[in-house]
Amino acid sequence: MEKRDELYRGKAKTVYLTDDADKLILLFRNDTSAFDGEKIEQLDRKGEVNNKFNHFIMTKLEEAGISTQLESLLSDTESLVKKLDMIPVECVVRNVAAGSLVRRLGVEEGKLLNPPVFEFFLKNDALHDPMVNDYHIESFGWATAAQVARMKELTFAVNDVLKALFDEGGMMLVDYKLEFGVDSAGNIVLGDEFTPDGCRLWDKETRKKMDKDRFRQGLGSVVETYIEVADRLGLKL
Amino acid sequence: MEKRDELYRGKAKTVYLTDDADKLILLFRNDTSAFDGEKIEQLDRKGEVNNKFNHFIMTKLEEAGISTQLESLLSDTESLVKKLDMIPVECVVRNVAAGSLVRRLGVEEGKLLNPPVFEFFLKNDALHDPMVNDYHIESFGWATAAQVARMKELTFAVNDVLKALFDEGGMMLVDYKLEFGVDSAGNIVLGDEFTPDGCRLWDKETRKKMDKDRFRQGLGSVVETYIEVADRLGLKL
Repeated sequence: MEKRDELYRGKAKTVYLTDDADKLILLFRNDTSAFDGEKIEQLDRKGEVNNKFNHFIMTKLEEAGISTQLESLLSDTESLVKKLDMIPVECVVRNVAAGSLVRRLGVEEGKLLNPPVFEFFLKNDALHDPMVNDYHIESFGWATAAQVARMKELTFAVNDVLKALFDEGGMMLVDYKLEFGVDSAGNIVLGDEFTPDGCRLWDKETRKKMDKDRFRQGLGSVVETYIEVADRLGLKL
Repeated sequence: MEKRDELYRGKAKTVYLTDDADKLILLFRNDTSAFDGEKIEQLDRKGEVNNKFNHFIMTKLEEAGISTQLESLLSDTESLVKKLDMIPVECVVRNVAAGSLVRRLGVEEGKLLNPPVFEFFLKNDALHDPMVNDYHIESFGWATAAQVARMKELTFAVNDVLKALFDEGGMMLVDYKLEFGVDSAGNIVLGDEFTPDGCRLWDKETRKKMDKDRFRQGLGSVVETYIEVADRLGLKL
């Protein structure tokens, strides 16, 4: 597999074309950003940790029957993935109230959400990723009604697998965001990444924050804590 | 029917108890407010115009088989209504992009929305009426999943009736908000009001604004235009 031109540079990953038109390479960089890119830092080893963490989680999801974009690890910081036509929305599930939900709806951080809350956000930095719903997505042509239904179904399926996985490691999966794309056969496939950058994880007993809130809130030991999360799941980094 | 104590004072209406525990009186005041109550003015005759306009529209909806809270006109500015246990969300349907949708999603004002967009907003002034979705409503107990489905069904049924009605009067129903409550038998019933204060109406040919945007945007002739809307529908005020 030969790496070709850069296709897209995101806030934490760069996507490269390859000599296979159906495959891309994801490079996980050390860049760590928050608040719409207003706070950006380089954190040593973060690219490697997230690349390997993502591979570990995506493998667990594949084993549970959920199709993901991931093909294989290529290097410490690179993964080979299937090319998808990405749908420009983020799918969020919240098991516990935290973050923007607390600010928007005035609920207490830590409140258990039963049933869990599902939210769509439009991926648009200039508009600050506004919350949208099924009707916006269909009316503006970002996805079909069937694709919307499938994204919800898969996002909740991921919840069942990962809540149990993190629980075994003594952690609560507070919330997370997923992104989906359409493969060449028209199937909805889980894309992007699942790392502590895009979810909230709390220690079950102490409620210690073990995710990117450590970076957002200046709590320190960001990468060290991501490594601890991996360790608790049985992945040595 | 005897009017008793004030139950609730909103931004444009006051609700009174009556000697019948199942009935309330709505008083439509001349107060006109916008921007979360930051802009407030008294507009001569507005209470009367909105009271009679609301009675006219609710009667049309009842004739089309949609249950409403309205019982009868009591005076120029008062209507008798059934007491409902109000659900604290606003149901919005948008046939054409305008207002907050344009700002939030960066779409052009006037874009036709096909299919129409449906949105829920939490009624909470302190939080500036945030957009919410089915999951928030169910998880926080503001309504059941069945009630959510029924509110959507009724809000779209209202769209069919009122789009045709305004079209006959040479107007486009751009968007509108409805509020629902639960009656003593557990049915979801249309409550609150339908007036040019809570919808957007444009002249079909000239796109002249014929709703509360005249007040929000300082275009003048607010009540005079509401009277013109009524006149075009066959209601002389």
